[in-house]
Amino acid sequence: MNRPAEIFRYHPGPEDFVWTFGGAAAKATVRPGTLLELFTEDCFGGVVRSKDDLVSLVCNFPFLNPQTGPFHVEGAEPGDTLAIHFVSIEPARDWGASTTVPLFGALTSTVHTATLQPPLPERVWIWALDLDTRTCTFTAHDSAHRVELPIDPMHGTVGVAPANLEVRSALVPDAHGGNLDSPEMRAGVTCFLGVSVEGALFSLGDGHARQGEGETCGVAVETAMNTVIVIDLIKGRSAPWPRIESDTHLMSLGSARPLEDAFRIAQLDLLRWVAQDCGLSELDAYQLLSQVVESPIANVCDTNYTSVAKVRKSWVPGRSATTETHERLKAIGAAYLADLAAAAGKETE
Amino acid sequence: MNRPAEIFRYHPGPEDFVWTFGGAAAKATVRPGTLLELFTEDCFGGVVRSKDDLVSLVCNFPFLNPQTGPFHVEGAEPGDTLAIHFVSIEPARDWGASTTVPLFGALTSTVHTATLQPPLPERVWIWALDLDTRTCTFTAHDSAHRVELPIDPMHGTVGVAPANLEVRSALVPDAHGGNLDSPEMRAGVTCFLGVSVEGALFSLGDGHARQGEGETCGVAVETAMNTVIVIDLIKGRSAPWPRIESDTHLMSLGSARPLEDAFRIAQLDLLRWVAQDCGLSELDAYQLLSQVVESPIANVCDTNYTSVAKVRKSWVPGRSATTETHERLKAIGAAYLADLAAAAGKETE
Amino acid sequence: MNRPAEIFRYHPGPEDFVWTFGGAAAKATVRPGTLLELFTEDCFGGVVRSKDDLVSLVCNFPFLNPQTGPFHVEGAEPGDTLAIHFVSIEPARDWGASTTVPLFGALTSTVHTATLQPPLPERVWIWALDLDTRTCTFTAHDSAHRVELPIDPMHGTVGVAPANLEVRSALVPDAHGGNLDSPEMRAGVTCFLGVSVEGALFSLGDGHARQGEGETCGVAVETAMNTVIVIDLIKGRSAPWPRIESDTHLMSLGSARPLEDAFRIAQLDLLRWVAQDCGLSELDAYQLLSQVVESPIANVCDTNYTSVAKVRKSWVPGRSATTETHERLKAIGAAYLADLAAAAGKETE
Amino acid sequence: MNRPAEIFRYHPGPEDFVWTFGGAAAKATVRPGTLLELFTEDCFGGVVRSKDDLVSLVCNFPFLNPQTGPFHVEGAEPGDTLAIHFVSIEPARDWGASTTVPLFGALTSTVHTATLQPPLPERVWIWALDLDTRTCTFTAHDSAHRVELPIDPMHGTVGVAPANLEVRSALVPDAHGGNLDSPEMRAGVTCFLGVSVEGALFSLGDGHARQGEGETCGVAVETAMNTVIVIDLIKGRSAPWPRIESDTHLMSLGSARPLEDAFRIAQLDLLRWVAQDCGLSELDAYQLLSQVVESPIANVCDTNYTSVAKVRKSWVPGRSATTETHERLKAIGAAYLADLAAAAGKETE
Repeated sequence: MNRPAEIFRYHPGPEDFVWTFGGAAAKATVRPGTLLELFTEDCFGGVVRSKDDLVSLVCNFPFLNPQTGPFHVEGAEPGDTLAIHFVSIEPARDWGASTTVPLFGALTSTVHTATLQPPLPERVWIWALDLDTRTCTFTAHDSAHRVELPIDPMHGTVGVAPANLEVRSALVPDAHGGNLDSPEMRAGVTCFLGVSVEGALFSLGDGHARQGEGETCGVAVETAMNTVIVIDLIKGRSAPWPRIESDTHLMSLGSARPLEDAFRIAQLDLLRWVAQDCGLSELDAYQLLSQVVESPIANVCDTNYTSVAKVRKSWVPGRSATTETHERLKAIGAAYLADLAAAAGKETE
Repeated sequence: MNRPAEIFRYHPGPEDFVWTFGGAAAKATVRPGTLLELFTEDCFGGVVRSKDDLVSLVCNFPFLNPQTGPFHVEGAEPGDTLAIHFVSIEPARDWGASTTVPLFGALTSTVHTATLQPPLPERVWIWALDLDTRTCTFTAHDSAHRVELPIDPMHGTVGVAPANLEVRSALVPDAHGGNLDSPEMRAGVTCFLGVSVEGALFSLGDGHARQGEGETCGVAVETAMNTVIVIDLIKGRSAPWPRIESDTHLMSLGSARPLEDAFRIAQLDLLRWVAQDCGLSELDAYQLLSQVVESPIANVCDTNYTSVAKVRKSWVPGRSATTETHERLKAIGAAYLADLAAAAGKETE
Repeated sequence: MNRPAEIFRYHPGPEDFVWTFGGAAAKATVRPGTLLELFTEDCFGGVVRSKDDLVSLVCNFPFLNPQTGPFHVEGAEPGDTLAIHFVSIEPARDWGASTTVPLFGALTSTVHTATLQPPLPERVWIWALDLDTRTCTFTAHDSAHRVELPIDPMHGTVGVAPANLEVRSALVPDAHGGNLDSPEMRAGVTCFLGVSVEGALFSLGDGHARQGEGETCGVAVETAMNTVIVIDLIKGRSAPWPRIESDTHLMSLGSARPLEDAFRIAQLDLLRWVAQDCGLSELDAYQLLSQVVESPIANVCDTNYTSVAKVRKSWVPGRSATTETHERLKAIGAAYLADLAAAAGKETE
Repeated sequence: MNRPAEIFRYHPGPEDFVWTFGGAAAKATVRPGTLLELFTEDCFGGVVRSKDDLVSLVCNFPFLNPQTGPFHVEGAEPGDTLAIHFVSIEPARDWGASTTVPLFGALTSTVHTATLQPPLPERVWIWALDLDTRTCTFTAHDSAHRVELPIDPMHGTVGVAPANLEVRSALVPDAHGGNLDSPEMRAGVTCFLGVSVEGALFSLGDGHARQGEGETCGVAVETAMNTVIVIDLIKGRSAPWPRIESDTHLMSLGSARPLEDAFRIAQLDLLRWVAQDCGLSELDAYQLLSQVVESPIANVCDTNYTSVAKVRKSWVPGRSATTETHERLKAIGAAYLADLAAAAGKETE
């Protein structure tokens, strides 16, 4: 009974990627309840492979952040909410790349925070990934320091076609999702996105083996991913901003500049979510959240900055209308993983 | 050997509070190594006690955020760093108060984010505090919801006299510390503040039984505190921005507007701290921190907004020059607490 | 010899408007040197006609800011600059409309500067326009005040298809132009826009009989316009941000949030323009501009805020590479207006 | 009858300057109606005299922006407004200095907009001032360009002791005035400042021979000034933010970060000024100002950014309560200047 409606496998070839949300033809139509096994390429299109592969030399702007998709979801209409449950996000390579990029990142002037200063030096760091130990290894350039860190795989980019007739670059985070660059987008959570066009047209990409809060230098440990998701549709419920539910938390993600506007959006969206679904007045929700909210920053480097507002589910009354969906999709994912494990067990017998 | 240089006890009376950093005469001179047992009043001066005690009625602006101090630290000179280790922070009452304040907070227009809209309604919530269960209880006004939450006591305000000949209101967070409103300022950590005037002139106040990240409505669960600290002086080392060290993490706190500037300050200060003390080049530190930094927001309601950059000590090479101080002060605090416990044990025999 | 390559007349019907930059098929192809006689509808599509026509009742978001165009310019390629000279901008009606719009404008919270406060009341002001006296009349709702002000007609919106594969709402100002809402976009100036797609695909709309700097309430004195432009192409010269040249001034327009980023963009773009075209080092240009620049704000209400940096041509050395184009297009416009006047003279004989 | 209450002459010596608003003893007590003949030193204390006098070498932070004053105004109490009419502002030297300052200015990263990039090169430009031709001459370093520009003398800094028990550096602009750096603070205008402490304690300094809007590089054409003012007191009327009245315009000056908050403050303060004094409802004032306001930026380099909102007096109904004061002080200044001219005439006979 915890079976997906169907299983859809998609490994895009070099010509199959798209670079925008909206504006591209659907690669396939999938039904709500479908489990998708997807491959995503890294944000550089896989071409940054060594310390000599400077982004300014090997990448071709705006062809960054290749998206796997878009997928048309049967029955999705404006005013609905698309649910995307992340069953697993696993690095598809044993290395990841990170870099400085000229005039990009939080600790440099940029095209928008424009100064007369020259850009920072361009550098590439190749990180070793080890799926057995679940670690990634940083190797310093200018000293002998090496350190092993836990991997915490996530997708920087997940989104749907935007509202207002727009097509947005895959580098942009906004109300449609997109390049949110939040470490909260990890396996086990369900992401909710408001649908703005028929079929929703969702896609994802930009896998990170791990990322700090804020993505300070503008680039995480970028790697290709094998990712399994289950999708579903909540008819007649809209989500003004991207939302995430985990087993323990509800989260809203605001994207804007300046950063305090992103913060305000996320806090107000979470407040209204909690007030409406959990039966608190807005002022009571304002008070309660003010004492319990966690506010991890997602990114301070992209076209919009992204701030997360996060509350423990056990600390708010009632139950979010999304929780049933989260739990059902999670059960489907768990059954799938159990089947895989069983099959792997048989194989190794 | 883990004994403080001396023990100084100070319980200010109603006339003893100050409302600024800088500009007030020292209440006492203390030597480095002194353990201080202090009482701090809540941010309202203790006058918000029931739901009818609206801030606009019972408080007298600018007499908010009363400070316990200032204390002159013997030998402190500009260019030194003051270390303040928090041994314990314990609510001095069995209740705390939180409120909305007209045109103050993150989800309302303010005097600075000025709009034509009327202010939000003014409300008071009284929280019950229970030191035995270490909980505080939220009671909704407009529904039957009640929830018990863990207390996590902290000081919103800790600072020294500012640089540049200035005197700042105790409501302001900046390079001198002040009203940082960070939940990281809890028992067990050591706070480092750059000294700008002879004697440092530090004070503290604004105890919170708990606070969410961002202090969204502008007010935490405000309560009086009995707080024990040990202070020390690091000669000839300056701290451009407030820093905190816990057993596990190094943290920098940037305060500015817009919020991305507070973020940048905190990230760059932590980067330079790690680079200098731990032996990484700045670009290597930029890369490493970008993948491991935690960036909890402290406040998005005060005169400046405050952002924290936080790194696990085990993930950076070497050892911060502050760690010896943190560990020594912690040992003094532990010995003091052990003595207290022993004494309490004898009493109950 | 001051004749346009051709004259192109276009009065769109109700079905002919577009609502985006990029993403719409060209309405016509025009050669560089063409003079275009265009009609533009007001930002409301002409449906706000009385004080009872509240935007929330009569408008259908996102169908705001109808654009006349887009036009494909023969030979325009990425890396070129499109020149649009405004020969005349004349109100096509004897009234204009302005309004408050819920959660839109500078002195209200918005979807992005999100607060818990309710929106401001919704109001419509109908302004009388008089082309003979060149005035518009404000009539207060809540008192007897009336005042006649000079009209100063302008286009809020002029732009080309954006870069990075994007399609942007006609409500957005950015590097492609769009909804800049600058009073500097008046008759007599030449606007320069960097071309990002083949054919440039420019359009314009959003006529204002007059507008304050900042468009504080978010809405100017909106009216339909009969507008005459001459277009041209500067091959092989790119304009990173919209630029305007008048007989007396060079101007750059930066659009971003926060507003200081828009300011920085405009100032740096003007600085580089002056340094490159006029033969100053960047630091000398920085110094000179710092003492002579005018910095009128365009809008503080749109998706991005827009800031103008403006320098008197006689105060910088040399001559901008754009001046020849400006003067040539102006001469074509002058000849056209002289012909019109002559024809009108004959008619009235 | 247009005679000042008294004439007070003050030429501070090197030891007489102060560097803060608030926190310094009054140099003198003056009655309302007094005309003051004052000398102000330039922001560098007069020590930047040649291209080799780099600020980082010859200046001693925080001893920048020396203030002439403070002066205690007899009878001034919190809740009153101080009026300062500028009769004349005349350069006291035949040269002015401008510079880049490391990590200061709009087109560089700063201590608050913190990046890893090194500062811009440090340079000094000495401008020749000619009071006969009323010009100042820019001489480029890196090319042969020279250009004569009109002088437009102004004070960057004018303020009173701040509220909230604070003492602020003379480099800070805020509600108390201070380092507003607005070219609108020129001879002929009256500046209105809300009084926060007994005696008001006003001072001024930071003369500029001319300055662009925004003071982009952070430094204007800095020079010493001989300045004549007439002061007065409006009892029982407060000014929440600095206001300026000229013969033709009313202006409000907002100071904050980000720049849009400074814009909002200025626009809302002007709106309320016009609504209250001129008899418009707030919404009608919002509409009218939105179509007529001028919004020149003052500075985008100081601790707070400053934005001006400016409306032509003939375009609003009624008459500001400040106009009588402005006209009376202006008449006193005119009589004084006429006497001076007459005396000079006699001398030259």
